[in-house]
Amino acid sequence: MHVKIVLVLEYNGEHYHGWQNQPACRSIQSELEAAVSQIAGIETRVIAAGRTDAGVHALYQVVHFETVAQRPLNAWVRGVNAFLPEDIAVLWASEVDETFHARYCAMERRYLYCLLNHPVRPGLSQGRVGWFHGPLDLVKMRRAADMLLGEHDFSAFRTAECQAKNPVRTMTMVDIRRQGHLVLFEFRANGFLHHMVRNIVGSLIYVGQEKYSPDWMRELMKNRDRTQAAPTFSPHGLYLAGVTYDEKWKLPDSRSLSFSTPLPVVSRMDQSDCK
Amino acid sequence: MHVKIVLVLEYNGEHYHGWQNQPACRSIQSELEAAVSQIAGIETRVIAAGRTDAGVHALYQVVHFETVAQRPLNAWVRGVNAFLPEDIAVLWASEVDETFHARYCAMERRYLYCLLNHPVRPGLSQGRVGWFHGPLDLVKMRRAADMLLGEHDFSAFRTAECQAKNPVRTMTMVDIRRQGHLVLFEFRANGFLHHMVRNIVGSLIYVGQEKYSPDWMRELMKNRDRTQAAPTFSPHGLYLAGVTYDEKWKLPDSRSLSFSTPLPVVSRMDQSDCK
Repeated sequence: MHVKIVLVLEYNGEHYHGWQNQPACRSIQSELEAAVSQIAGIETRVIAAGRTDAGVHALYQVVHFETVAQRPLNAWVRGVNAFLPEDIAVLWASEVDETFHARYCAMERRYLYCLLNHPVRPGLSQGRVGWFHGPLDLVKMRRAADMLLGEHDFSAFRTAECQAKNPVRTMTMVDIRRQGHLVLFEFRANGFLHHMVRNIVGSLIYVGQEKYSPDWMRELMKNRDRTQAAPTFSPHGLYLAGVTYDEKWKLPDSRSLSFSTPLPVVSRMDQSDCK
Repeated sequence: MHVKIVLVLEYNGEHYHGWQNQPACRSIQSELEAAVSQIAGIETRVIAAGRTDAGVHALYQVVHFETVAQRPLNAWVRGVNAFLPEDIAVLWASEVDETFHARYCAMERRYLYCLLNHPVRPGLSQGRVGWFHGPLDLVKMRRAADMLLGEHDFSAFRTAECQAKNPVRTMTMVDIRRQGHLVLFEFRANGFLHHMVRNIVGSLIYVGQEKYSPDWMRELMKNRDRTQAAPTFSPHGLYLAGVTYDEKWKLPDSRSLSFSTPLPVVSRMDQSDCK
């Protein structure tokens, strides 16, 4: 008798080559599969909602696997955690019926990007933020971001290696706000292309520093040419922050997580703060 | 002609054996001295306000050094940062007169302790939080913490290796508050003994889990016996968050830093949040 188990996990992606198994690389997937296999007593493969890149973190990643092992749910949380590296943790587990699929049943994904906007590079939060040193006009960035809302062909923001057959996605929310010296970007869409968030963040920063006007964002999308957009921004500020499923699956609601930021909300002093 | 330079820096202490130079160990001090010496063009020693332990972080550490090198202030910030490891950053620099001393002129130090209070161990914030899995009664913890206020002999909370001649310190503030699944402790005193904050946090957690009543804190202090207090709590949740000097030195005011937390304010879901 197979059962299907769904897990919610968090991780610091800093020291991994991303979610996906790759030969001779440490991946989140391989670490999780090794730990789950220990508890299951048999080799077990897992499938994730989102294949995060090297250096990208997760506050709320969803994973499922099938197993013949009958274990109390707590074994899939604390038991698995005992075999996981310290920077990966299962937060929650449940049994689901066989029609659930972490990737194909996901209706919405939510990503967060944390940018340190300060003249001095990060020290304490290194590995967990992107960094831009100059002034940013958030009003202009928001105007550009609004053009991303709705159904669009996002080819301008996907990497050449992107395997998606269809480059059309529906962006349901973009929010940009300042918290201390951080600029926090939140993106919600039915799905994201490879490098899409990091490419969008890079382009929004071009608009914020007034390299281009907000309307440039519309042009980029229309031209569907990756070479016109800004370079891919650092993975270190990117967090998979939630995945939404039909209510019938009864997963914890990632949107209700009252987090403000996964990161230092520290107003660092500037050289100008003194004298 | 010597000049005296004062720096404010932040660091992630996770991968260091603490502030202080030790043979065959990576220390924050040795990394900073190497970087400052590069910019100065001559071997330079630095002195810090607080000698943080292995694994302890800083949001606001103050350091001074003397040098014959004449450099623009920016060289002591960005120049030094170019030679520092990525997890240490100078935030601010200024010239001070020769009577300034980072350690002896400090009037107040401020420490922050971040505790993840959740059934599941940290993953994403591993290395940056302490962790306690069970329920904590913050009202009782605050009552115990209030007994620490004022001038006391803190011998009960100092390690055997503590080199301070006098175990009397004046605690001017203790604050304990919940933010999502974090419990944040803030301590301000004219100075702290070796391991004092971590020993106090351990003892407050004993009170919070109702192992002892709040009055136990008063007894501990009266008996001045380290063996009666709780074990030293993890260094990973501890942050040197500020050092206060006389206004005449014109250092940026660490108390005005509008930080809420140096850490994930993520309300993680519990197993109980669902079904």
